[in-house]
Order: sequence, then C-alpha cells, then structure tokens
Amino acid sequence: MKLKFELVKKDGKTNGRLGKITYQNQVYETPMFMPVGTQATVKTLSPEEVKDAHAGIILANTYHLWLRPGDDIIKKAGGLHKFMNYNGPILTDSGGFQVFSLANPKDISEEGVKFKNQYNGDELLLTPEKSIEIQENLGSDIIMSFDECPPASASYDYLKNSVLRTLRWAKRGKDFHSNPDQLLFGIVQGGAHEDLRKLSALKLVEMDFDGYSIGGVANDHESKEDMYKAFSYSTKYLPENKLRYAMGIGEPIDIIEGVIRGIDIFDCVSPTRLARHGHALTKYGKINLKNAKYKDDFSPISSDCDCYACQNYSKAYIKHLINAEETFGARLLSIHNIRFLTSLTENIRESIKNDSLLEYRDEFIKNYYGDNHE
Amino acid sequence: MKLKFELVKKDGKTNGRLGKITYQNQVYETPMFMPVGTQATVKTLSPEEVKDAHAGIILANTYHLWLRPGDDIIKKAGGLHKFMNYNGPILTDSGGFQVFSLANPKDISEEGVKFKNQYNGDELLLTPEKSIEIQENLGSDIIMSFDECPPASASYDYLKNSVLRTLRWAKRGKDFHSNPDQLLFGIVQGGAHEDLRKLSALKLVEMDFDGYSIGGVANDHESKEDMYKAFSYSTKYLPENKLRYAMGIGEPIDIIEGVIRGIDIFDCVSPTRLARHGHALTKYGKINLKNAKYKDDFSPISSDCDCYACQNYSKAYIKHLINAEETFGARLLSIHNIRFLTSLTENIRESIKNDSLLEYRDEFIKNYYGDNHE
Repeated sequence: MKLKFELVKKDGKTNGRLGKITYQNQVYETPMFMPVGTQATVKTLSPEEVKDAHAGIILANTYHLWLRPGDDIIKKAGGLHKFMNYNGPILTDSGGFQVFSLANPKDISEEGVKFKNQYNGDELLLTPEKSIEIQENLGSDIIMSFDECPPASASYDYLKNSVLRTLRWAKRGKDFHSNPDQLLFGIVQGGAHEDLRKLSALKLVEMDFDGYSIGGVANDHESKEDMYKAFSYSTKYLPENKLRYAMGIGEPIDIIEGVIRGIDIFDCVSPTRLARHGHALTKYGKINLKNAKYKDDFSPISSDCDCYACQNYSKAYIKHLINAEETFGARLLSIHNIRFLTSLTENIRESIKNDSLLEYRDEFIKNYYGDNHE
Repeated sequence: MKLKFELVKKDGKTNGRLGKITYQNQVYETPMFMPVGTQATVKTLSPEEVKDAHAGIILANTYHLWLRPGDDIIKKAGGLHKFMNYNGPILTDSGGFQVFSLANPKDISEEGVKFKNQYNGDELLLTPEKSIEIQENLGSDIIMSFDECPPASASYDYLKNSVLRTLRWAKRGKDFHSNPDQLLFGIVQGGAHEDLRKLSALKLVEMDFDGYSIGGVANDHESKEDMYKAFSYSTKYLPENKLRYAMGIGEPIDIIEGVIRGIDIFDCVSPTRLARHGHALTKYGKINLKNAKYKDDFSPISSDCDCYACQNYSKAYIKHLINAEETFGARLLSIHNIRFLTSLTENIRESIKNDSLLEYRDEFIKNYYGDNHE
C-alpha cells in the first residue's frame, strides 16, 4: 500500500528531475502539482472533477480536520480516502503551519504548541507525537513531521534555534510513527540561510526520512530570490532517491524555478482561491473575469485547454456566474485553474525528457509576462 | 423544435394524468418536477448533474436574467440553452412574480409595472410585451404571460380586478409573441375563489394558449385546503390536451395533491434551498444534517436512493461539509433532493398507470409524516 517513488531522469542542464510515483497499481509522474482539499474537499469540486483535471496526490489539512470533524470521526469512517471518496494518494501536513499562522499560539515550548480551539475555546496542545497520531488516524499516504514555522522576518538566531527545535521534533515524531503504510517526511527549514538549510537537511537525512519537504518558502519573502535560494540550499543536501516537496508553492513561475532547483512536488490553494475571486490562469497570464470586456466574449478561457470548463462554457457565462455569486462559476474556474497547473507540470516533464527545461522557462515567461498580458 | 405534449392516460379514481412530452427527439413523462435555475444555473450543479438526477424541463427566471447579464447578452450567446449548456427543455417565467415580490414596484398601471433596477437604480418598466420580448431573446421553450401576482390576503374585489387585468395582459402578450418555437402559457389567477378561477381559466382557454399555469398558489395560504382548491377550481375549466403547470410548488405532499387535481408539472427552489441549509428529503420526512446524531453516521442519506450523493457519500461526510460551509455539501444535498422529487414523480406516474394514486398518497403520508420522522 505504501507509495513508491523512483527517479527516472534528470534534466541535462538543471537540477530538474523526472520521477515516477507508484500507488495502488497506478503510476503518477513528477514534477507534480497537488491541489489542496483543506477540509477533506477540494473547494467546490468532486473527487471525479479533481481527477479529470489530471490531479494525482491531493492535500488535506491536519489542523482543520483535527478540529472538525475530528480525526476520531475520520478514523471511524475508515480513513480520509473513504470519508471523502478519493482513491488517489493523499498527503497531510503536520498542522504546524496552521497553528502558527491561524491559531495565535499563546505558548510555544519544547513540548509543543498550546492554542485555543477556534470553534469552542478549548485549550489544545499540538506536539510532534500528537501530529503523527492525528495523521495516522486520518490514514493519509504521505505525512509530515511537526515543525515550527517562524516568520520570514525572524532573526538568524531565532531561525537557528527554531531549526534545532524542529530537528528534535522531527526525531520525536519519527520515533512515535508506527503506520508502515505511510511515508513520513522531514521538513527542511532555515530561511534563506545556506548554513541553516544545510544543517537542517543533513540532520534530517541522517534520520533517514521517507522524503523531504522544503518549509518556510511560502511566507512573504523579501524577494523571489530568497525563495529560490531556499530551494537550492535545501535540495543540494538531499538524497536523489527521495521525493522533495516545496510546501505551499503554486505560482506557475515558482513551480518552474522550483523544478529547476530539484523539487518534485508542489501544493497551493491558489487555483481554487483565485477561482473564487473570478481569476483564471492562462498561458498569457492571469485574467480577471470580472473585467467588463468579457461580458459578451463567448470564447472559452483558453482555446487550447481540454478542461470541462473550456470545452463547454464561455468567458461570458462564467463571468455572469461570478457576478451573480453562483458557486458553479468558482467551480468551473477551479477546474480550469487546477488543469492549468497540472498541464504546466506536464509541459515541464516533457521539457525534462528533452533536456530543454531552461528553454521552456524562457518561453513560459515570454508568454505569461509578455505584452499579451491583460 | 417546438415541445409537444400528449395526454397518455388518466388515473381511474382521481384527476391524475400521465402525459408525454416530446422535445428534440427525447421523451419526458409527466407528472414532472422541474428544478429551478434562477440565474441560468441550478444552484451548485452542472447541467450533467441536473440530468443525472433525472430532471427534464428546468426553469430560469426572466426577471433575474433580464437584469443580469441581460437578455441581449444571452441572445447574442445563441440563447439560454447554449449560454448555460443545457440541451433539455427550458421554461421561463414572466418576471411578474419577482417584480411584485422582490422589486417593491412603485407604480402598477394598465401599461405595466415600474420599478427600480436593484443593481444600478435605473427605472425599469415591465409590460406584457416586454416580458415576451425578453423571453424570446432568452430562447426558452415554454414561456409565460405577464401576470399580476396579488398577495393571498388581497380582497375579493382586488383579486377580481387583478384577474381581469391579467387577462388583458395575457391577450397583449399573446398578440405580441412571434417565435413559433416557443409554447406560450396563460396564467390562471383568482385566489381560492371558484368563480374567479373559472372566469380566469375560461377566458384564457378562449384565447387558446399552448398551455396553462396555475398562479398564486405558492403564496402564504390560509391553509393547504385553499391551495388545493385553487388547483381544482383551475384545472376543472382547462382542456385535457394541454399542459397544466402549478407555479412554485415543491412540497412533496403538494405535488401529490396537485397531481390528484389534474396538474402535470411543478417547479420549486426548495430542493436546492433546503440543501444549502443542510436539509435532505427522505421517504421518512425531512432530515437536518446539522443534527449532532449524524456526526458518526456513515450510512448514506437513503439506502434505496440511486443518486450520486447516496451512492458515494455518508451522512457524516455531508454533515461535515455543511458544518464547514463547503459548497460540495450543498451540491451533494441538491443532487439528492432533486433526485428525491424526480423519484417522487416517477412513483406518482407508476401509480397512475396502476390506477392507485390515492393509495400511493396514503402510503406516502404514512411514511413521511409517521413516527419515523425525525
């Protein structure tokens, strides 16, 4: 039942990697974009629609599901796959990012993080062990070690102590973890500092995780350069035969630059969030369907897109749905935006096969940020 | 292209009728429940899901589409079918009900109704001719005459004058109507007064409409008896070979009682509205999935329902989605509730075939309002 990863080929001129995931007799290729189903549903979509948009692994959020409906309920249901009717691979995060960003923790200690349940005010404690226990109850296929997520603005000293604590937490989680069907990933932290990323990566590799995540990259960065440095400084010290996952990254150019720096899998809420705001991703940049010019544009979002939205509906109709706050509009745009990103990774994989990833990036940038941009 | 109706059989003991609608080489049977797609979308659902729930004719609202996106846009798109990607029959109302109930009209005269556009404050005038013009632009298959919709509490004298005006408006709309592919219905009004319903029905029949609607039945009634009287007093004077449509009726028992009194087609926003509030229709009454007892109920809403929601998801999962305000929850419940009503009409049709409509009603009431009710 355990998901298996194999490295298939490397790009001739970059650290880009083509990989193969085998799961329940199905093969999925990497680099891959993973849609997010925060609350055990990819917002507005059915599992069938998620698959039809060529998604493979999807994400679910430990923090949210722990609080509601509760991991006990999901365990009783037979696990997340059965609960939400998704038979592809599911990855869960550790709950760390949400505890730090949403729950305003009042007490961060060596033991773990104390915070108040947003729904009933109960005091809760999330520890490395508890995070693994919840993820075991959820029954996801790839699970994360509990990590501290310091703000990008944190000082070097704060970051260093945080990296060291996250390493101790990773060890505790690994010792606690008992489900042999789940891959457990360690999370590389350390901001844009090479020595910290190196320390973090090498120590995790020593512990021999099933895969490695690059954390702290979806924060507000000083610059994209810092994000890309964090990618490079992490993957440089990671083994070739394990999956590398950049957490929370979904901007198309960041996916391409991440692959160039040796990342395999990416997740982000952006395709569904953009959809709810009326935005569609296209080869020629993001378009905003609220723009008046689309009111009588009866062409699809993209004439060369094979998604359900583009095959059956016009910009004018989707614009109308968005204006009228009809959820079918967000649904059509979610399908399209996810398909855009899975199609992007298909193109990336093709270019790695041809050793032309850099050329693909340049072509992509020319179109996406070029004069055709809205 | 014009939709065709044939009466197939009558129930042995009631005025229940089995009928057949032919449209684009497809056959649909009556009695039929029609889901409502107010703004050119049945809330939360794709056209495929609407069809998979065994829906035939769907409704769209003239008032809403006139104001947004505008009937000119929909005409330019090639009509409502193409705009919203629905290839089954579409019925539009006249806009009258919405103008009277939503737009707080400041001026009702012989000419028509003046009101303010809720989106931009513009003064608008809806007349019998304008209503037909909009519906011609929408390109729906069954269209309605413009009618005044007085409150159920209106005096006899008010109602009588209103019926007479609605008859003059019906005549004006019929004279104006020019699209031979559309069936135009007259609307019988008159509250619960037999003489007014009779007057209204006979005069409309004299004008020879393609079908007849029973209006003023979805208002707040003194009693269900008044609603059922209004059905009887109307159908009694209508020809057998034309469709009869009870506007805005979707409570299961009212559909059954309507069929018993000779109605063929029904529409209501209830299945999708109930869904958004977490309610599911079942043979044993309405259930509220917000109820705590469903939190670990991993059985489907109805074990004998063939809908997508019941075939793939548990009450516990749908409850979680509703609690988490995830639109996929309302979507699953919308599918189920529509399927419940189309399945109800399937059972009604079966019982008319067997001359057992009254027995079916009694059995339905026993289950729906019996001790098993939540």
